[in-house]
Amino acid sequence: MGITRRKAMTIAGVGVAGIAGAAAGATAVLAADSEPTVPVSAASGAVPFHGDHQAGIVTPAQDRLHFVAFDVVTKDRDRLVSMLQDWTAAAARMTQGQDAGTIGAVNGIPEAPPDDTGEALDLPPAGLTLTIGFGPTLFRDASGVDRFGIAAKRPAALEELPKFPADALQPEISGGDLCVQACANDPQVAVHAIRNLARIGMGVVSVRWSQLGFGRTSSTSRDQVTPRNLFGFKDGTANLKAEDTALLDEHLWARAADGASWMDGGSYLVARKIRMTIETWDRTSLGEQEEIVGRAKGSGAPLGHQNEFDELDFTIKGPEGEPAIADVAHVKLAHHSQNSGARILRRGYNFVDGSDGLGRLNAGLFFISFQRDAHKQFVPIQLNLARHDVMNEYIRHVSSALFACPPGVKDGGDYWGRELFS
Amino acid sequence: MGITRRKAMTIAGVGVAGIAGAAAGATAVLAADSEPTVPVSAASGAVPFHGDHQAGIVTPAQDRLHFVAFDVVTKDRDRLVSMLQDWTAAAARMTQGQDAGTIGAVNGIPEAPPDDTGEALDLPPAGLTLTIGFGPTLFRDASGVDRFGIAAKRPAALEELPKFPADALQPEISGGDLCVQACANDPQVAVHAIRNLARIGMGVVSVRWSQLGFGRTSSTSRDQVTPRNLFGFKDGTANLKAEDTALLDEHLWARAADGASWMDGGSYLVARKIRMTIETWDRTSLGEQEEIVGRAKGSGAPLGHQNEFDELDFTIKGPEGEPAIADVAHVKLAHHSQNSGARILRRGYNFVDGSDGLGRLNAGLFFISFQRDAHKQFVPIQLNLARHDVMNEYIRHVSSALFACPPGVKDGGDYWGRELFS
Repeated sequence: MGITRRKAMTIAGVGVAGIAGAAAGATAVLAADSEPTVPVSAASGAVPFHGDHQAGIVTPAQDRLHFVAFDVVTKDRDRLVSMLQDWTAAAARMTQGQDAGTIGAVNGIPEAPPDDTGEALDLPPAGLTLTIGFGPTLFRDASGVDRFGIAAKRPAALEELPKFPADALQPEISGGDLCVQACANDPQVAVHAIRNLARIGMGVVSVRWSQLGFGRTSSTSRDQVTPRNLFGFKDGTANLKAEDTALLDEHLWARAADGASWMDGGSYLVARKIRMTIETWDRTSLGEQEEIVGRAKGSGAPLGHQNEFDELDFTIKGPEGEPAIADVAHVKLAHHSQNSGARILRRGYNFVDGSDGLGRLNAGLFFISFQRDAHKQFVPIQLNLARHDVMNEYIRHVSSALFACPPGVKDGGDYWGRELFS
Repeated sequence: MGITRRKAMTIAGVGVAGIAGAAAGATAVLAADSEPTVPVSAASGAVPFHGDHQAGIVTPAQDRLHFVAFDVVTKDRDRLVSMLQDWTAAAARMTQGQDAGTIGAVNGIPEAPPDDTGEALDLPPAGLTLTIGFGPTLFRDASGVDRFGIAAKRPAALEELPKFPADALQPEISGGDLCVQACANDPQVAVHAIRNLARIGMGVVSVRWSQLGFGRTSSTSRDQVTPRNLFGFKDGTANLKAEDTALLDEHLWARAADGASWMDGGSYLVARKIRMTIETWDRTSLGEQEEIVGRAKGSGAPLGHQNEFDELDFTIKGPEGEPAIADVAHVKLAHHSQNSGARILRRGYNFVDGSDGLGRLNAGLFFISFQRDAHKQFVPIQLNLARHDVMNEYIRHVSSALFACPPGVKDGGDYWGRELFS
C-alpha cells in the first residue's frame, strides 16, 4: 500500500480525554456534551518538539507511557555527546510522525537498518512526546568517578533522594544515568520511539529498566477529564495544570538562579513505582476507602464538599462534628497547605506487570512528578505521606529515580544536553 | 459529577483500526478516506455478550488485551460452579458497560465492596469481550486427580500440547485451570474486568499468570487495517477472518460430532508468549528480514507480488530464477498449503514487559490462536515452523497454554460451563 508515517495518518488511540461524546449503549457518536473536549487532532496529531521547555511536562497528559532508564556503558564523552545529538534528531523526527532515521528514508521506508524498525510506519504522531533526563550517576557514578567531566555541574537539586520510611526499593529497577519518558495516545508509537532510541544508542547505553503505563492517572490541563487510578479513585484533581502559569513558574521550572544555568527552564523528574495490593484494597469497605483518600469515590468531590474541583476546606465538619476530611486523609497530607506550600506536577500512569507468583496481579501506579526542586517539593510531601498516610497499608514503593530534565531544544544545532556538555 | 458507566459514555481508546482518517500533520479530522473504516460506536460501544459463540473470537480484534490464567484453589465443585455463575453475570454486565456488581449498584456506584472496584466507572464498554477457557488440568490435575468429576468429559482435543523443538517454556507462566481473555479498545476497561473477576473468584481461584498486550497484531475482519508486530512487519494478513464463514465452520468451531457435546460451537485457544530478541533483529538488514518473513516490510505484499492481500503464489520466481518466496520463508512454512490445509484464527498482541536485566527490552508477541482442534491445526503448523523457520534465531517461546473455550452463553440461566458441569 506504500503508506508511510509521513504520507497518511490514521486516528489512533483517542483516549478517554481525547473526545467526550454522548452515547447510549452501542450508539456512541462524536458529539460534544457537558464534558471538556479536546479536538481529535490533539490525540492523533503532533506535539511540537522544539521550545523553551521540553514537551511531555505540561503537555496534556497522553493516555499511554513507555518510560526507560539507561546506563551509559561507554567512558567516551564524545560518543555520549554524539549519541545525544543523534537522539535529538531522531526524537525531533519521531514526534512529528516520521521514522527515526536520518538518511535513506525519504519515502518513509528505510532502505536498510538501522534507519527505523518499522512497527510505527502506518501510524500518526499520536501526540508523542519524548522527554530526556540526566540522573545523578551520570555526573558521578556509584564509585564516585566523574566519567564525563561534568561532576562540577551537578546541581544540588540533583542529589540522590533520601530513603523514606517503608521504602522497599529494588535497585535493578531504580536509578539510571539517563531516562526518556515517552508519552503518546497510541502505545505502539511510544514503544517504537523508546526502542529506536535504544537501537541508536547501542554500544553507548544499555537499558537499565523500562516501564509501560497503560492509562494516565493525572490531568495536566483543565481541558482533560480526571482519570482514575487502580484504587478506583479519580486522581490528579488538584494537580498543577498547564493553565496555572504563575504557579508553574514558582513550582515547576528551574531557573539559572537556582544554581545550574544549564537547567534554566528545565525541571526535575521523580519516578516511583508504587505497587498497590489491590486485592486487599478491594476487601476494604467503600466508606473506609473514602476516608483514607478524603474524597468520594464516585464524584471525586472532597468529603463534605459538593463537587470534584471544590477547593479543599479542612474546617468543614462531618455529621458528628469531626473534620469531614480526616487529618490523615491522603488529600490532606499531600496538600500544599500541609507541606510549606510545596506543589508538584504529577504525570503518573497505571500499570499491570502480570502477576506476582502469589496469586495476585502485579499492579499499581507508576508515579511521575515534575518540580523545580524535588528536595524542596517531592521530598517533604512524600515524608509526610510515608509517616502518616493510612494508604501505606495498601501500597509499597518498589522503585525510585530522580532525573534533571534540561530545558527544551531550540532549532538549529541545539541538542539534548548541549549546555551541560559545552 | 455522578457519571456512571450506565449513565454516560465517553469515547475511549479509539484505536488504529477504529477510525481511519485523512490527516496532514496535526490537523487530523474525522473523515473517511480510502482505508477501511469502522464506526466509532464499534470502538467505544458494546459487543453483545450472549450468542451461539463466545464473543472475543471472531469479534474484530480490539486494540488492547489483558489475558489471565487462573488456578482453581478449591476442591469444592459447588463453589466452582457458583463462581462460574457469578462470573457469567458479572461478564454480561461489564461487557455492556455496567459495573461488575449484581446488587446495590443501581446508580452505578456500588454501595460497598465487593460490587465493583471503580476504576472504570466513567468509561464506556470500549468493545470489551470476555472469553473463558478451560485448561486440561481442570479435568485432571498434575497428580492425575479428577477434582471436579469431569475427567470423563475431557475432549481428546484438550490433551496437553507436545513439546516443540527449542521451546524454552517457563512453567510459572504456562498452563492454568481456567483462562479469561479480556479484549477492549481501552486497556483500563480490560484490566478492570480481569481484576473484578479475580476479586469475585477470591478463595476459589488464584491468578496463576497474567499478560497485558498493548497493541493487536492480527485482524479478524476484512474491515480492519492490518497492524504490525514488533519485527515491524504487517501481521495477520492471511488470517482467517470473520467474513470467511465457510472456513470458520471448517477450521474454527468445534462440533458435537468432534467428540464433546459441551464444546459444540466452542473453539480451542492456544496462547504462546514469544519473546523477540528485537535488538538482534534490528541489526539484520532489511533484505534479510524480508527474506525471512517472505513479505515486503513496507507494503506487506508477499515477495514477488504486488499487493498485501495477493494470494500467495510460490511458483513466482525472483530475478535470478530462484523462488521469490523462499522455501523456508515464514509465510510459506505457516501457509495452509504446506500444512495439510490447516488454518487457524490468530488474535495476538504485542507486549513489552520492562527489561530483561541484560540491557534489553523484554518484548515480543503474545500469540493467541483459535481453532477447532489445536492438535490438528496449531501443532502441525508450529512443528513446521519450529523445525525450519529462520525466524527462530530471533524468537523464543517462553510460555504455552491450551484451553477449551465453550460455546456462547444463551440468555436466561445459562452460564459459562453449564453443559460441562451438568
